[in-house]
Amino acid sequence: MSERTLSGTGVTPLSGVGTVVWYDQDVELDEPHAPEDVDTAAEQARFENAVATAREELQTERERTAEKVGESEAEIFDAHLQFLNDPQITDAVEESIDEGLPAEHATREGFQQGIEQLAAAGGRMAERTDDLRDIRDRLVRILADAERIDLSALPEGTVLLAEMLTPSDTAQLDPETVAGFATAEGGRTSHAAIFARSIGIPAVVGVGDDLLGVEADETVVVDGEAGDVIVDPSAETRERASERRDVEIRSDRVETADGKEIEVAANVGTLAELEGAVAQGADAIGLFRTEFLFLDREAPPDEDEQVDTYVEALDAFPEGRVVVRTLDVGGDKPIPYIEADEEDNPFLGMRGIRRSLGPDAELFETQIRALLRAGAVGDGDLAVMFPLVATVGEVEQALDVVEDVAGDLESEGVDYAMPELGVMIETPAAVFVGDALAERLDFFSIGTNDLAQYVMAASRQNEHVADLHDPSDPAVLRAIDRAVEAAHDGDIWIGMCGEMAGDPDLTELLIGLGLDELSMSAVTIPDVKANVVDVSTADARTLAETALRAATKDEVRAALSEDT
Amino acid sequence: MSERTLSGTGVTPLSGVGTVVWYDQDVELDEPHAPEDVDTAAEQARFENAVATAREELQTERERTAEKVGESEAEIFDAHLQFLNDPQITDAVEESIDEGLPAEHATREGFQQGIEQLAAAGGRMAERTDDLRDIRDRLVRILADAERIDLSALPEGTVLLAEMLTPSDTAQLDPETVAGFATAEGGRTSHAAIFARSIGIPAVVGVGDDLLGVEADETVVVDGEAGDVIVDPSAETRERASERRDVEIRSDRVETADGKEIEVAANVGTLAELEGAVAQGADAIGLFRTEFLFLDREAPPDEDEQVDTYVEALDAFPEGRVVVRTLDVGGDKPIPYIEADEEDNPFLGMRGIRRSLGPDAELFETQIRALLRAGAVGDGDLAVMFPLVATVGEVEQALDVVEDVAGDLESEGVDYAMPELGVMIETPAAVFVGDALAERLDFFSIGTNDLAQYVMAASRQNEHVADLHDPSDPAVLRAIDRAVEAAHDGDIWIGMCGEMAGDPDLTELLIGLGLDELSMSAVTIPDVKANVVDVSTADARTLAETALRAATKDEVRAALSEDT
Repeated sequence: MSERTLSGTGVTPLSGVGTVVWYDQDVELDEPHAPEDVDTAAEQARFENAVATAREELQTERERTAEKVGESEAEIFDAHLQFLNDPQITDAVEESIDEGLPAEHATREGFQQGIEQLAAAGGRMAERTDDLRDIRDRLVRILADAERIDLSALPEGTVLLAEMLTPSDTAQLDPETVAGFATAEGGRTSHAAIFARSIGIPAVVGVGDDLLGVEADETVVVDGEAGDVIVDPSAETRERASERRDVEIRSDRVETADGKEIEVAANVGTLAELEGAVAQGADAIGLFRTEFLFLDREAPPDEDEQVDTYVEALDAFPEGRVVVRTLDVGGDKPIPYIEADEEDNPFLGMRGIRRSLGPDAELFETQIRALLRAGAVGDGDLAVMFPLVATVGEVEQALDVVEDVAGDLESEGVDYAMPELGVMIETPAAVFVGDALAERLDFFSIGTNDLAQYVMAASRQNEHVADLHDPSDPAVLRAIDRAVEAAHDGDIWIGMCGEMAGDPDLTELLIGLGLDELSMSAVTIPDVKANVVDVSTADARTLAETALRAATKDEVRAALSEDT
Repeated sequence: MSERTLSGTGVTPLSGVGTVVWYDQDVELDEPHAPEDVDTAAEQARFENAVATAREELQTERERTAEKVGESEAEIFDAHLQFLNDPQITDAVEESIDEGLPAEHATREGFQQGIEQLAAAGGRMAERTDDLRDIRDRLVRILADAERIDLSALPEGTVLLAEMLTPSDTAQLDPETVAGFATAEGGRTSHAAIFARSIGIPAVVGVGDDLLGVEADETVVVDGEAGDVIVDPSAETRERASERRDVEIRSDRVETADGKEIEVAANVGTLAELEGAVAQGADAIGLFRTEFLFLDREAPPDEDEQVDTYVEALDAFPEGRVVVRTLDVGGDKPIPYIEADEEDNPFLGMRGIRRSLGPDAELFETQIRALLRAGAVGDGDLAVMFPLVATVGEVEQALDVVEDVAGDLESEGVDYAMPELGVMIETPAAVFVGDALAERLDFFSIGTNDLAQYVMAASRQNEHVADLHDPSDPAVLRAIDRAVEAAHDGDIWIGMCGEMAGDPDLTELLIGLGLDELSMSAVTIPDVKANVVDVSTADARTLAETALRAATKDEVRAALSEDT
């Protein structure tokens, strides 16, 4: 049989070849016996045993994930264990058994109610329905004695196929053994896609139902660049798939052909990703997101836990800089212990620094204390940046908090160090008052995802306006140009940590626009470094000027393609 | 007893003195008799009579509103009549009567179900719950034989007080007789507030429960500038309230002290407002919203109906210009016969020109045909502008539609005239590519409400970020400055039709920023004209330059107050 190709959305510029393992959580149950034929006491005992087994499994998976991936990733299992101990849910199952259902059917029925209640609660609560479904499927699988696929112990060279992967699934995947994965559902911004990019696993998502026709033990290529899943690949295809990644990994800093150094850094969202960043040759961390410290737990991390985390990041880059972004949450990133109103337009609401200077002021102060302490201990150079700044007043307030915290530490006799201080350039307002911001700060980092969304007035999550949300639109390029000018006029450095920075096709343009640093998913670092060394800054500036004169996106594309 | 002052939110810079009439739709019902004591047949007859009476009332109110205010305002009563004929609702009431409730109690219970269903449907449907409540309260009032307050026939010199006013309430108010109104609920953007501004009635909203203590027949001053309701005012206060409006109404065009003509125009949203615009001395219509033609009806207006409407507007300004904005709807302005998805961030979704070039292309073409035809018939000069433009590509597509329509009319032998063509500057993107837009168009008009919302990434409807949403923030001023520069470099005129344009305190600043036209709620025109003639353009430019150098809103305010 000749090879066949299924198309989806590629989420990492990586290819992998391996043997299919299907991850199928759906267990088909037989029709239940008539209630009078069900031995209620025996079914209650079966259910209790299943809960005990599930608890053991979860504890093992938790430990293995903590060890191989990271403590914060492992915390998702704590949430599952909690649900398993929740009498509201177990009582509902036991009631269904009393009404004459076998334990596995009763589990489905008993959980259904809880899932519906959570879904109806909306917002943050609704997000937990996936967790409840996960536990339900685990219990049903145990009760039905169906095969258990241990995601943390897959054989080397596995290509994992699934309808979709949940956070607790992906947390267990080991990039050393998993050659790639593909899912029928999901898009570029699904959890599985983001995870694949950050860890560097070849992955294709959104393949659709055709994926379900691929059988276990078949050989497939997952081409994350083309977005293809190639079943039964020819020898040639397999070779091409392994060749594709023969880009040299350079751990040294790179400069353009005419000697301008460009810092190529990594965006990371967990401690587990630090290793991948080092392995891909990152010079620094250009964006260390701190949300992972706060998500999926019942109480915020205390100061000492945060210090340890930041020190670990700084120690991973003894010769480099680690830019930590302070907590950036809002309507779209809910956290259990943070009160947030439902908003009609959450992207235009209480997000980023607005929360840190308002309802989350206490969390913000603790985070700043932990950062200043970590800066005195860790090996690398700490920089701290504030998200979603729109006014000079916000920066002044944030700097006051830093000053106050430093004063407190001083008088308490606690060691601390002042980090570089900067802001994300994500709002058009920050671009327009860039000169005044530059006077007060040490650096800027452009977040192109949000900046493009506000400049174009087009949500990055709305498919109907997806075409408008494009960072290479002339309007966004001109906003970037103005931000760079403000930074350089104010003698501070400016980087970019949005998705745009990791697109190797745009490296020359971005250097031409004057960016000093580019920060991206670790996996694209080798490609971008390879491009930097070929760039002449004079040619890059000419390209940028052509692009800045363009009236339309098409003209920008034409300039880029003429150039190559 | 001495005067006392209640504070709320002033919504018009007008004051009025009058006698309180309370508009209280709440009828208190006695406990119902026991079911066995209720004569079911008699109650059914009472309910049928009440429905007939309500229908008569609605028809009378509809006619009076059509005559005194306008046909499109009157259409809200059609929706009410439809609900009254809906068997789903009347059946529910009749069932409750059969279960032994008196007609008035049964009405409340029967409507409750419909209201809950509509509310649960969300989105556009939920907006109709106010209509259902309106009809329910009307029926209960008729059944309880409670006093009917005919809002369209209030005695001259009435100050109307109410908890809140619905669209069908305000549609009946006659500015000739109503000296002002005040409501306990509502904010600056509530329906009642917008209505008051457009018709020019002194109004204060959001006074709170204190308002309920004011008694009928008391004398009050409604000071829409200070946001005060002054009960039992002293002679002095009354005099001040009437003095305040002694600003000369000038129907001639005005120029600055050194001879630069500034066009002072009106924003209108219905034909009824044209008269007020003329009466307040508007030179032109700077923003003719066309949504009123499409809202509150079951099918879109046909081409001829639109031609008539546009001609009526043009005839009202035989010596001036009428700038018509093409249909501007989206997630936040629902229309029954337009399909629109629910969006997570509607302000960043399918709105304005995006709909006209996409799902509403047919409506757009019809509107352009009607506009080109009206331009050949009406007295004034027609200009047409497109809302929410973010790219040059959108403008090119819109201009292609205009060309195609002109070609069709030409070949059909139908009279038409080419209007001036322009865009609203509402997105940061339009500011950044202003030079390319100016090459293709005849004029710009800045919409400061949306522009400020996108520049600051702060929704204009979210109270938590209201402080950020400020058009006098330096970032917004710099965006305005850049748009003016792009327009003038491209030799086209630029106006402003956002709320900012009508703030008399900002007239000098706006002239200094170089705006050629200011368009506002008619009621503020006399104040702005009075300010224009005092301005020296050189001083205004100095003021603008100081404001543009400011880093914060406070510095802008300081510059403005030093200046006066």
